Amino acid sequence: MPLTPEAQAEIADARATPRPTLRAVSEGMEAHLYTAHPVLDHGFVRVIDYMGDDSAIVQAARVSYGAGTKHVSNDEGLIRYLMRHWHSTPFEMCEVKFHVKLPVFVARQWIRHRTANVNEYSARYSILDREFYIPAPENLAAQSTVNNQGRGAVLEGEEAARVLELLKSDAGRAYDNYEAMLSQDGQQGLARELARMNLPANIYTQWYWKVDLHNLFHFLRLRADAHAQYEIRVYAELMCKLVADWVPLAYAAFADYRMGGVNLSAKGLEVIRRRLAGEDVTQETSGMSKGEWREFEGVFG
Amino acid sequence: MPLTPEAQAEIADARATPRPTLRAVSEGMEAHLYTAHPVLDHGFVRVIDYMGDDSAIVQAARVSYGAGTKHVSNDEGLIRYLMRHWHSTPFEMCEVKFHVKLPVFVARQWIRHRTANVNEYSARYSILDREFYIPAPENLAAQSTVNNQGRGAVLEGEEAARVLELLKSDAGRAYDNYEAMLSQDGQQGLARELARMNLPANIYTQWYWKVDLHNLFHFLRLRADAHAQYEIRVYAELMCKLVADWVPLAYAAFADYRMGGVNLSAKGLEVIRRRLAGEDVTQETSGMSKGEWREFEGVFG
Amino acid sequence: MPLTPEAQAEIADARATPRPTLRAVSEGMEAHLYTAHPVLDHGFVRVIDYMGDDSAIVQAARVSYGAGTKHVSNDEGLIRYLMRHWHSTPFEMCEVKFHVKLPVFVARQWIRHRTANVNEYSARYSILDREFYIPAPENLAAQSTVNNQGRGAVLEGEEAARVLELLKSDAGRAYDNYEAMLSQDGQQGLARELARMNLPANIYTQWYWKVDLHNLFHFLRLRADAHAQYEIRVYAELMCKLVADWVPLAYAAFADYRMGGVNLSAKGLEVIRRRLAGEDVTQETSGMSKGEWREFEGVFG
Amino acid sequence: MPLTPEAQAEIADARATPRPTLRAVSEGMEAHLYTAHPVLDHGFVRVIDYMGDDSAIVQAARVSYGAGTKHVSNDEGLIRYLMRHWHSTPFEMCEVKFHVKLPVFVARQWIRHRTANVNEYSARYSILDREFYIPAPENLAAQSTVNNQGRGAVLEGEEAARVLELLKSDAGRAYDNYEAMLSQDGQQGLARELARMNLPANIYTQWYWKVDLHNLFHFLRLRADAHAQYEIRVYAELMCKLVADWVPLAYAAFADYRMGGVNLSAKGLEVIRRRLAGEDVTQETSGMSKGEWREFEGVFG
Repeated sequence: MPLTPEAQAEIADARATPRPTLRAVSEGMEAHLYTAHPVLDHGFVRVIDYMGDDSAIVQAARVSYGAGTKHVSNDEGLIRYLMRHWHSTPFEMCEVKFHVKLPVFVARQWIRHRTANVNEYSARYSILDREFYIPAPENLAAQSTVNNQGRGAVLEGEEAARVLELLKSDAGRAYDNYEAMLSQDGQQGLARELARMNLPANIYTQWYWKVDLHNLFHFLRLRADAHAQYEIRVYAELMCKLVADWVPLAYAAFADYRMGGVNLSAKGLEVIRRRLAGEDVTQETSGMSKGEWREFEGVFG
Repeated sequence: MPLTPEAQAEIADARATPRPTLRAVSEGMEAHLYTAHPVLDHGFVRVIDYMGDDSAIVQAARVSYGAGTKHVSNDEGLIRYLMRHWHSTPFEMCEVKFHVKLPVFVARQWIRHRTANVNEYSARYSILDREFYIPAPENLAAQSTVNNQGRGAVLEGEEAARVLELLKSDAGRAYDNYEAMLSQDGQQGLARELARMNLPANIYTQWYWKVDLHNLFHFLRLRADAHAQYEIRVYAELMCKLVADWVPLAYAAFADYRMGGVNLSAKGLEVIRRRLAGEDVTQETSGMSKGEWREFEGVFG
Repeated sequence: MPLTPEAQAEIADARATPRPTLRAVSEGMEAHLYTAHPVLDHGFVRVIDYMGDDSAIVQAARVSYGAGTKHVSNDEGLIRYLMRHWHSTPFEMCEVKFHVKLPVFVARQWIRHRTANVNEYSARYSILDREFYIPAPENLAAQSTVNNQGRGAVLEGEEAARVLELLKSDAGRAYDNYEAMLSQDGQQGLARELARMNLPANIYTQWYWKVDLHNLFHFLRLRADAHAQYEIRVYAELMCKLVADWVPLAYAAFADYRMGGVNLSAKGLEVIRRRLAGEDVTQETSGMSKGEWREFEGVFG
Repeated sequence: MPLTPEAQAEIADARATPRPTLRAVSEGMEAHLYTAHPVLDHGFVRVIDYMGDDSAIVQAARVSYGAGTKHVSNDEGLIRYLMRHWHSTPFEMCEVKFHVKLPVFVARQWIRHRTANVNEYSARYSILDREFYIPAPENLAAQSTVNNQGRGAVLEGEEAARVLELLKSDAGRAYDNYEAMLSQDGQQGLARELARMNLPANIYTQWYWKVDLHNLFHFLRLRADAHAQYEIRVYAELMCKLVADWVPLAYAAFADYRMGGVNLSAKGLEVIRRRLAGEDVTQETSGMSKGEWREFEGVFG
């Protein structure tokens, strides 16, 4: 369980004391506020704050387009229109702040999304906890033999046992020695900013991460995708559920146009048109490379 | 008065219906929500939404610095420490959304601040109102004779009257002809996206502008500064008051370290040290150019 | 002609003196450097500087993916792979700087792309030239009756003549009065930062605009699109040609996957699959709204 | 030595073949191109490409300010004026691309600067080399007893030896086990994206890092500062030298106004004025907290 009793009491306390506000309120998101949703073995995602709801998107769009939006009959239709036509600025009018606990190697991938605000726990100032990500047996995958960045079959038997044992013992020893180097018991104690270098990338860190809805959608499209690494995908998938409760209309449009949709190249579009016209198109006559054709066939069969 | 009776009724309605929330609430900002604060002759600033308060800054800093922040005795001290040492990320954890009505030439200067989200009323979709900024007589300034981007004395007498008459009549005629070109009465009517090109830069536009507190402070430092053009400065000055009510501790630190402070160059620092040691330093012995020395003397006398 | 003889001489001079460099060189872009390519009646686009070429994209990708990229046989294949899979960071490794002269109402749309660096001519410091965009007769379009942001038929006869006359005379009078207010002949002269407010949105401004290739592609996809306003589209179309000469492989991938491609929603994908399986799908059985269906049919017929 | 003979041959080759260009050329930077400047025990910084020079800054400023800049007599004066008055956009017109090899814990601090473009070597795709940062004895510092994020005295004797031994043996064992888990010799081999989690934060990574001069100066001000961690400061100090050779006038202005300068708060400014007027001011009469006063005295004695 990722939270201490003290932390849980603090959350219960925060959740017990609603206050009046004149701001837009999303009931779906209020129900999630502060609660730690577990992810992986020691991680979590908590919503700390949010700004706006589906109506805020519509309201911003109507400021932009003025009377031009009146012909769209309702909020859902307008939100779908905005998403379909890449009008991203109204979605930027919503903002959300998460508290996330995650392994360092996941954090390193996550931070590449630059259009967000971050406050990370600093191992320069403070001492990290002894918490490491150790994959569950069903997630202990072999290297893919066809894809440089992918996973193959699940490891089994002795190999799996050996890997788990190595991950656990190396993490444990690294942390023991981190503590030994820091210790001021009978010695000076190494500076924290140096001692941290001994810790492996599966140690947990935590941060506050604040982002607008447009950029969050971009993050989710890439990280909740089937090609994303499992360990970041589970965070993205959980966040998808939170966003669906926060802005249900916007999330539904995102699910239809981005997550469930595909991008068709000019060549791909031409192949579809020819096929719809009854022509039998093969890789050789498609103009695509073998790799592209394989991906194309993966979608259209 | 900048708002129609309908708009005022809508604001009164929004302000009459508080709802419970579990989020951080700033009482000072709740009191401002939705109210249109007038600026210039037809402009306004309204707070539409906000996220966070002084405590949210402190909370984010404590996530970052962990136990490292415990020795700072209170929130005010920690916020001042963060501001003094350019720890900007905790201030990014607060966000605010304004509805602003402003002349186009002010909007053009404002939009240069890129780290914000904007939804502007589109004259491509919709028709602009007949509202133009006409300076009050006391703001009708002559070109500075010493500063290329500054103002000199206030225009007086016939010259002032002539300028006001020209601004009013040109704006009026431009708008009449805008309407005449758009009209579909007995003719096709020019496309809105083309007709707008006839409108002068003192016509009012409006937008939603959303920004985090760190970047808002950066905006305010530059635009509430005495060297900023009067017509944008009045917006910034009003926003300073709103921010002071929203996050009083952060604003006080900003006022002390940024607005009221100065940047001293290495040369300037050396001059101060020599003077404090009793030496009489002149421009010639300061190592500064005449322009720098004039600015330096302006601060230290 | 947009450039003075002095400016032309300066360009000829700059183009006459090549210097040795060890950096990546794009022959296609060298041929364009400094030359002013005319756009609209007084505008232009000039390439002032660039960084990188197709090989720089490949090189950056190989740093990221290491041995993982070796199986892709050649540069073209790798660049197409990167574009297809939204690996945007290698494209960010190229940068370009343009000098653009453009009407203010175009500049206002352009500046909404925030991930670029801009230095615009300041009418606060300096006096603008008497140059206004007046549409050519074939671009004088009526408001679309079906699309709030679109154009319909070209205006004809008396209406066209009337519009052109209004645009010209209002621009001329506004500029005459701008000069009259600025004049220090027998009067103080209004401050430049105020006088500029009298100028209409079809006056020309100019700026240096610097952007990385990934963000430039994003700009071009939106602004060279058939739905973009004609007056910004002509700039984007010209820049497409310059980019094609600069990074031919990257541009070809962009043309195939972005410009010529389409985004298919989950619903649209399902319709295609059903049609390819021989089913006859109508709007009613598609799950799409009428508006979406119309757009869908516009692509797949 | 950080580079393989192959890499050195590649660099020698690239440096041997200058090509003509019409772009701005900085002789000082040409001399650095591609050369690997060693940092720490296995790291380096290499300049891969650059755009612009001191003249490009001046040129961009003159586009912005037009005739308004003519009264500044020369390039140096204008560049100093721009830096002094926080006119940052002309500095954004220069761009530079570095290839950097650095320990992961340094990379994690570095990446917090978001306004840059990055392509990092991916341990998801490829296998990292067996290279770890092990501090030189003189950099093996104890935790500061007065500053949570600082260093105290250098460790000595047995404690130092013990720390070095722990860092070396843990890194070696972690890498051995990384290889053992990856091995496909008689087993499937763990996926690379999982095996990497066993590696400690002192392993070296590498990336291409591209940034504009304004944002680079911001990075250098924070990271070449005496309070920055030694292991990132040595990178920043080296880059200061490279920038000084690239844009000598801009770097000199930066050194004077930013690196060598100080920020004075309103309270600090008041104390200086009172002291210059002969008053004896103490912490009690300064209005500053004890912490602020200590820092203030540290500067003004």
